[in-house]
Amino acid sequence: MIYQDITVAVEAHVCTITLNRPERLNAWTQRMENEFRAAIEEAAADDAVRAIVVTGAGRGFCAGADMDILEAGAASGGEGTADASSLKPRVQGIERNYAWRFSYLLRVPKPVIAAINGPIAGIGLCMVLFCDFRYMAEGQKLTTAFARRGLIAEHGTSWMLPRLVGVTNALDLLMSARTVVTSEAAALGLVKAVPAEGFLASVQQTARELVHFASPRSIGVIKRQVYDGLFQDLDGAWERADEEMHASFKSEDFKEGVAHFLEKRAPAFSGR
Amino acid sequence: MIYQDITVAVEAHVCTITLNRPERLNAWTQRMENEFRAAIEEAAADDAVRAIVVTGAGRGFCAGADMDILEAGAASGGEGTADASSLKPRVQGIERNYAWRFSYLLRVPKPVIAAINGPIAGIGLCMVLFCDFRYMAEGQKLTTAFARRGLIAEHGTSWMLPRLVGVTNALDLLMSARTVVTSEAAALGLVKAVPAEGFLASVQQTARELVHFASPRSIGVIKRQVYDGLFQDLDGAWERADEEMHASFKSEDFKEGVAHFLEKRAPAFSGR
Amino acid sequence: MIYQDITVAVEAHVCTITLNRPERLNAWTQRMENEFRAAIEEAAADDAVRAIVVTGAGRGFCAGADMDILEAGAASGGEGTADASSLKPRVQGIERNYAWRFSYLLRVPKPVIAAINGPIAGIGLCMVLFCDFRYMAEGQKLTTAFARRGLIAEHGTSWMLPRLVGVTNALDLLMSARTVVTSEAAALGLVKAVPAEGFLASVQQTARELVHFASPRSIGVIKRQVYDGLFQDLDGAWERADEEMHASFKSEDFKEGVAHFLEKRAPAFSGR
Repeated sequence: MIYQDITVAVEAHVCTITLNRPERLNAWTQRMENEFRAAIEEAAADDAVRAIVVTGAGRGFCAGADMDILEAGAASGGEGTADASSLKPRVQGIERNYAWRFSYLLRVPKPVIAAINGPIAGIGLCMVLFCDFRYMAEGQKLTTAFARRGLIAEHGTSWMLPRLVGVTNALDLLMSARTVVTSEAAALGLVKAVPAEGFLASVQQTARELVHFASPRSIGVIKRQVYDGLFQDLDGAWERADEEMHASFKSEDFKEGVAHFLEKRAPAFSGR
Repeated sequence: MIYQDITVAVEAHVCTITLNRPERLNAWTQRMENEFRAAIEEAAADDAVRAIVVTGAGRGFCAGADMDILEAGAASGGEGTADASSLKPRVQGIERNYAWRFSYLLRVPKPVIAAINGPIAGIGLCMVLFCDFRYMAEGQKLTTAFARRGLIAEHGTSWMLPRLVGVTNALDLLMSARTVVTSEAAALGLVKAVPAEGFLASVQQTARELVHFASPRSIGVIKRQVYDGLFQDLDGAWERADEEMHASFKSEDFKEGVAHFLEKRAPAFSGR
Repeated sequence: MIYQDITVAVEAHVCTITLNRPERLNAWTQRMENEFRAAIEEAAADDAVRAIVVTGAGRGFCAGADMDILEAGAASGGEGTADASSLKPRVQGIERNYAWRFSYLLRVPKPVIAAINGPIAGIGLCMVLFCDFRYMAEGQKLTTAFARRGLIAEHGTSWMLPRLVGVTNALDLLMSARTVVTSEAAALGLVKAVPAEGFLASVQQTARELVHFASPRSIGVIKRQVYDGLFQDLDGAWERADEEMHASFKSEDFKEGVAHFLEKRAPAFSGR
């Protein structure tokens, strides 16, 4: 697949997806939406990929929805605004939670890591809330943006943000739409601050170490356990954990996990 | 309406409700309960009001239930203790969550901000847990109080406090009923510390800026989205967010939110 | 009951349970499992006990499942691995949440406090997540361990850890299984750091003060309110709080709670 609004590169188990409209601070378009989702599904299915890093080209990460689209929307009362979301999920039950615009990221059985290299706002922020980890270059800026445009908490942010930073901080960021710098975002627990010098390489290295020292199979199962747990009672989570524990005893990665420990050597997980 | 145990003043979009029994550190009475709720409903309905600040007269915020009432209760085995709560909500479904003694604060479509000027305990603390933001003057003291009186976690505190400060901190504050100073309450994420000098004016200014820079319409919708999200799966929250997004495209505040941005001027939101 | 893999001692209202296989860093066995649960149930039923402290003998707290068991498991594809968990709870409804391997700790109506004196990993960490408080000696180490052994988030950790430290920190600790020192664990809100010098005595003193100043009856009710609240809407929690409030008005501890306050003396709670 040839991409226009993103680029994709795989190196040493890490797939890096770059939002690529640097002249517009990587403002989000319907085309970017479609390409991004396709690239994520491709990386999810690729055995050579064990972790996914999402970043932005140039000096920005994502400035939100393209302002031309919003402006046209404001003029027309909402006609013609980008609308992938009008396609409601067709699956049922717990799976519906994983079927929306960005929540499909939660069911990718690999770590999805946002490398926020520059300014991030609006729909760009929505997206990274559904990444597993958020690293942010020091000295950058972040805003939910919506309330200052007369908009609301779009795409599941009102649900996810309180679970990441607590109810009060979520209300603050969403209601005020004020701009927060990297250090404050880190203090809120929303991101981890990383020096700007060598930023992307540093995040890629973190991703690589994560999937080197820990079993990729374990990581995939644990990710689903944690997110499913947001929709379950403790009882349901425990029953599931016992089933997964017994399944893990039969895996190659369990054999290797014990063997490398006893042999005091680096692990060589197959991911099976 | 003439109030006795509270005072109410509206200035420049901010309604300030002051608990007003300074000679008793604003200890809570049934009359204060009734007047407070009436004042909140009035402010909620008043188009001139965009934010509500709650504070205490004199050197205290609220010392808890009036000790005379508790003493009489202890003597009589609970007869005659203040009992607004015996009136169970008559509404059904998700609305019941918003129908109790203080949880009606969560459905007021305006920011409700506690300005904790002095000591706060017991039922006073219950009330501020259902405010959206809590600012506390430096050097003041806070306690849940109940467990040291032989009482339990009253009025929804056992549910809300873990969602504000995490399960462990909530167990600590509720089980021990120990006294916490402003700086520790701030470290727990329960309040934001503000200098005592010029305290109330500073909180009122924060409230005013909040509703100036962000759309009052957006703030009201977002508040309800966040609290509803505590009772919903991600799927339900997402469906609701898409509906609200489409409704917002048709609002005056969306038009103004785009216009003031493009024209690089201060916003003038109508709240519609 | 005579114990082999643990020791139990009661002094001044505090029961201390010590994991006691110091030559194996108190690695967990099926026998330890059975003895630990018996000791907890005994302490829960003993009127002389008002708080429970769990610690480890020697220089470790608990190194996880005994490596001999894991090694045999890896060789046999899971045959013969310790399996208390295969006994599914027979109770129904909300009670099932409290009926699993470690979640029974949540329904003990007394504070259960982990005193993490040394290294803690795997199943040892699972257990302390279901204690109400976690104190950890400075300079010690903690790891979830599972993902580096090819295992998954066992025994309810995937559900409980996000509720203690947030979703992102839980994903980090569970996916990476990296080793965290006391100071970082404290920064995450997972433990409170305590000086290593005089560690156990200090935790026991904290436990003693907790149940001296606060009513043991109140503590028991509040503990259940907070955990039940994780499985309830706000509405259900409020209804329950009102019932418990009225019951507390009739208790001896409420009488004493008011009396000692008015008489400005230390409390002498009966726990009834």
